[in-house]
Amino acid sequence: MTAKLKPAARVRGQRQDVWSVVNEAAAASPVQPIVNMGQGFFGYNPPDFILNAAKESLDRVDCNQYAPTRGRPRLKKALADAYSPFWGRTLNPDTEITITTGANEGMLSAFMAFIEPGDEVIVFEPFFDQYISNIEMAGGKVVYVPMHPPKEGAVKTLSAAEWTIDFDEFERAITPRTKMVVINTPHNPVGKVFSADELKRIASLCLEHQILILSDEVYDRLYYVPFTRIATLSPEIESITLTVGSAGKNFYATGWRVGWLIGPPHLIQYVAAAHTRICYSSVSPLQEACAIGFEQADARGFWDESIRSMKRKMDLFNAVWRELGVPYSEPEGGYFVMVNLSKVQIPDGYEFPPHVASRPRDFRLAWFLIHELGVAAIPPSEFYTDANAHIVEDYLRFAVCKPDEVLEEAKERLRGLKKYLKAE
Amino acid sequence: MTAKLKPAARVRGQRQDVWSVVNEAAAASPVQPIVNMGQGFFGYNPPDFILNAAKESLDRVDCNQYAPTRGRPRLKKALADAYSPFWGRTLNPDTEITITTGANEGMLSAFMAFIEPGDEVIVFEPFFDQYISNIEMAGGKVVYVPMHPPKEGAVKTLSAAEWTIDFDEFERAITPRTKMVVINTPHNPVGKVFSADELKRIASLCLEHQILILSDEVYDRLYYVPFTRIATLSPEIESITLTVGSAGKNFYATGWRVGWLIGPPHLIQYVAAAHTRICYSSVSPLQEACAIGFEQADARGFWDESIRSMKRKMDLFNAVWRELGVPYSEPEGGYFVMVNLSKVQIPDGYEFPPHVASRPRDFRLAWFLIHELGVAAIPPSEFYTDANAHIVEDYLRFAVCKPDEVLEEAKERLRGLKKYLKAE
Repeated sequence: MTAKLKPAARVRGQRQDVWSVVNEAAAASPVQPIVNMGQGFFGYNPPDFILNAAKESLDRVDCNQYAPTRGRPRLKKALADAYSPFWGRTLNPDTEITITTGANEGMLSAFMAFIEPGDEVIVFEPFFDQYISNIEMAGGKVVYVPMHPPKEGAVKTLSAAEWTIDFDEFERAITPRTKMVVINTPHNPVGKVFSADELKRIASLCLEHQILILSDEVYDRLYYVPFTRIATLSPEIESITLTVGSAGKNFYATGWRVGWLIGPPHLIQYVAAAHTRICYSSVSPLQEACAIGFEQADARGFWDESIRSMKRKMDLFNAVWRELGVPYSEPEGGYFVMVNLSKVQIPDGYEFPPHVASRPRDFRLAWFLIHELGVAAIPPSEFYTDANAHIVEDYLRFAVCKPDEVLEEAKERLRGLKKYLKAE
Repeated sequence: MTAKLKPAARVRGQRQDVWSVVNEAAAASPVQPIVNMGQGFFGYNPPDFILNAAKESLDRVDCNQYAPTRGRPRLKKALADAYSPFWGRTLNPDTEITITTGANEGMLSAFMAFIEPGDEVIVFEPFFDQYISNIEMAGGKVVYVPMHPPKEGAVKTLSAAEWTIDFDEFERAITPRTKMVVINTPHNPVGKVFSADELKRIASLCLEHQILILSDEVYDRLYYVPFTRIATLSPEIESITLTVGSAGKNFYATGWRVGWLIGPPHLIQYVAAAHTRICYSSVSPLQEACAIGFEQADARGFWDESIRSMKRKMDLFNAVWRELGVPYSEPEGGYFVMVNLSKVQIPDGYEFPPHVASRPRDFRLAWFLIHELGVAAIPPSEFYTDANAHIVEDYLRFAVCKPDEVLEEAKERLRGLKKYLKAE
């Protein structure tokens, strides 16, 4: 290929991402099959009432053709009905909600709608890795503010609430070019649910400096402590806030690619315009299925059951850490748990491939678990800048949205860690 | 909203698009319901074997979760098997094919993969309107080259082949910043299938100047004359060509959002990287259904039946123009027909709303047909620059991918044009 045909800088020469590092390690492991606790896909199906709704939608001509660019009316209406009680007022489905191709493309649409080249976006570390390329695609500059794990995280199990933002650091990160701040609650990978007080402090700085808030709330139906939606704190905060949701996370169907944004009309209209330019419209029959999902979820007790069932899985899995005396951050929401493996001693001279050896210790821990025990987890330093990667170099992220037998098999294998643990 | 929170230029203050002009006109028409021959969605369902495949996929846990970012292996394999005969060699499903969220996001991924701010992309008019915002989103500059309708298009029905590129105009449009040219064959809205000779001339200029070719072939299974795929003309041309396809168009399911690009590994890898950053992955269960669609289509005679059935609809509908003595461009492919309505005399003093009155005559024709006859069609000057809009100001685009009864109803209504036709 001649120089003239070269790819754009935005897709060139990036470091191998964590997903392919882990997948390749898994494929190369002597222990097979691997128990995959890495990526956050569900190991089970959406409930039957939603699957049946999807199948019935496939029989309807209009459901197989283009949805309106802002989404199928029935889904927008179902979302307005489902979220109005949280907002404390009636949401307008036509002006305050827009459907996107998953939450991911929804976030990109929000960045494309508001970020001009040179604008700054504040992102807390650890971040969901797609934020970064999405912000940069819009020409934005990412400004990072780290979350700090609890000081005693290496020696005892504490609530994920103990991961905190240093508000002085946050305030110092704000400049006249700051256009937006991204928050994520319940948080991936930390499992923290931001408290109302924390959200108020963030929002108050955003109001003071006129900064948009993009609140990634894709795990909004999985919380084990009281959950506050930042947009609902006050009408002033609502007026600068876009809230992102995901049917894939809500209904155990990460492959469906149905997401949405809720926000005031003066923000949503531009997100919808950006979405139209990116994807034109989103998958139609599965939007209809999600509409039916929202219409029926409450009456069927689905949301309560979702929480109960995921919390049970969380407790079931984390029992192995208590057994081993390995501390973790007790999640307040979501389906990830961050485990502190500082006690694990990797044998001297253990061999890692160069692309793993050159990364922080959590990459080596991940490789070691895959090769010695056949359990895959995600090294979270991928979700920090290089400068701050050391903060989480003893942690691994495990996803518990898996069938019980997978969790039990993972636990059984993880008991093999015992012989590598430092004596207390 | 304060100035600091204003939207990005890329989503601000665009002229109302043709789709909403037509939809609003339809909603405001005294004739109801409207017969919608405007947008190119199908008025009927995908075939049962594909719908059943989709339903069965919904029962599989892996089909409801994230697809790999480059697409489900079964779909890539089915596409490689289906397209290898056209390419005259075995396509590698893992390196030469990548799945996207519809052809639309596939085109955006290609632009994002190769266009740097300031790069130029040559687009022929009339263009598919999404090309423009997609190119501009990547920072590219669109350079337009018009297609010219046949000189006698106002007085007699001629083949869509008679719409031609002026190759001198094309060559003059090439500069050192030209990075890519977009072609579309079979062509929307013209219905032209570019001849092998035309494609060779385009490709030869692209090879000479080292310009990438992005070939939008979403109507590739609907041709009524021999169809040439530009990538298959020579290995040299293939090495600079990305070919875009669409399951939505192939399988009558525009709402499914499954598309793909075929091209050499040194191009596809960057398209896949861009796609990952835009949408992460594409809708999983419907990818599996499309895989089964491609596996079975040939044996079931589906492609032949597709052509036969659409050609029959085309002939059935266009009979009304022959009856009325109104000339059209006889399509060589696709499901659109461009009709020349220069003979239609809009009564003196007929009132149009300002946003229609200010546009070229085809917008007024579209409004007139909607309000007088209750038939919606698309004014194609939307797909030309203002400078060249006059070229198609007497044309309207009709979509024939509708049930026979809709076509018959449209014809019956269109007979009402008779009294407005200029005497010969």
